[in-house]
Amino acid sequence: MLKLHTAKGTIGLACEIALEDAGAAYDVHRLNFAENEQRAEPYLALNPKSRVPALETDRGIITETPAIMGFIARTFPAAKLAPLDDAFAMAGLESFMSYLCSWVHPAAAHRHRGNRWADDPSAIAELRRKAPEVFGAAMRLVDGQFFRGPWAMGESYTVADPYLYVVTSWIPRDGLDMADFPRLADHFARMETRPAVRTVLDRVRG
Amino acid sequence: MLKLHTAKGTIGLACEIALEDAGAAYDVHRLNFAENEQRAEPYLALNPKSRVPALETDRGIITETPAIMGFIARTFPAAKLAPLDDAFAMAGLESFMSYLCSWVHPAAAHRHRGNRWADDPSAIAELRRKAPEVFGAAMRLVDGQFFRGPWAMGESYTVADPYLYVVTSWIPRDGLDMADFPRLADHFARMETRPAVRTVLDRVRG
Repeated sequence: MLKLHTAKGTIGLACEIALEDAGAAYDVHRLNFAENEQRAEPYLALNPKSRVPALETDRGIITETPAIMGFIARTFPAAKLAPLDDAFAMAGLESFMSYLCSWVHPAAAHRHRGNRWADDPSAIAELRRKAPEVFGAAMRLVDGQFFRGPWAMGESYTVADPYLYVVTSWIPRDGLDMADFPRLADHFARMETRPAVRTVLDRVRG
Repeated sequence: MLKLHTAKGTIGLACEIALEDAGAAYDVHRLNFAENEQRAEPYLALNPKSRVPALETDRGIITETPAIMGFIARTFPAAKLAPLDDAFAMAGLESFMSYLCSWVHPAAAHRHRGNRWADDPSAIAELRRKAPEVFGAAMRLVDGQFFRGPWAMGESYTVADPYLYVVTSWIPRDGLDMADFPRLADHFARMETRPAVRTVLDRVRG
């Protein structure tokens, strides 16, 4: 049985939705970040990065959202969550997820987790100040150019959609106006009507 | 014909080595970063991210190193650059590349490109100061835990190897001691004996 290690308010939500989309049988372990469960044993032995999400499988642990997403898509091919047989289309999907993972997500993280990259409080404050500008510029590129519509990669729903859904939810959280991202706002609203998303949100919110 | 858009001193070198490993026919466009070629037309129309690498194919452009690497591995399966038929092993490869892409590379970039995340000069200086500490901690995890040996993913050479090779080259550049990363130092030395790496280095260095 798959077991997703995740935490409230993290990108792990995207993987939880993808598991639901896939029709997978899975357990969820929701870490308590307030008590720093991610930095203590036994989690540290499972994932020395001290981060979520991590997907436990019968062959071992998988970390990093794009890798977990790829694994879910390949393990449940009937759910058609990725264009597995098309090298160019797969590269498009991986490029989209990699941009979220390597540029958009860190850009947003500078707002709340500046202490990852600076010790000096005034530098951390400067990262916090500038983060919405950097994150907003990246998301305008996604809204205007990389998002194909009606789903992230075009006509077919893929694992990029729950990934984008969670990242889009950070737009209002970071003080930006959803109206400046009209295609992402429409995508976000449509995502929230999907049964898989409703199921996961109801579970997370208890 | 594939065309790799890259620049000296960037992670694009990893994709150039992978293309050589694959036995691909390809052209190389080496951008002039000193003249900000990446921020001007016609490159901007090709890649609005203003970054390298980007791989031009007959079906369109692919950006983001992990996506380019996956495309190369899938397009040239005879080169066996990825465990294409094993979902768990592919997830391991994608996780390794995603960690380099989303955490290790940005950690290093805070040393030279702090102006991406801060405007205030003293904050940029603080990012520069702390960057080798964050990058070094990540690379110690790679050296001690994620690197499997003799190649990044174990017995088989994959696209993760040229990726890791270039990231390892930043260790001495950032003032860290290669002796503190013994497995990566050994990997780096073995990479430099490979004909594909020699071919590419000779071409880049002119």
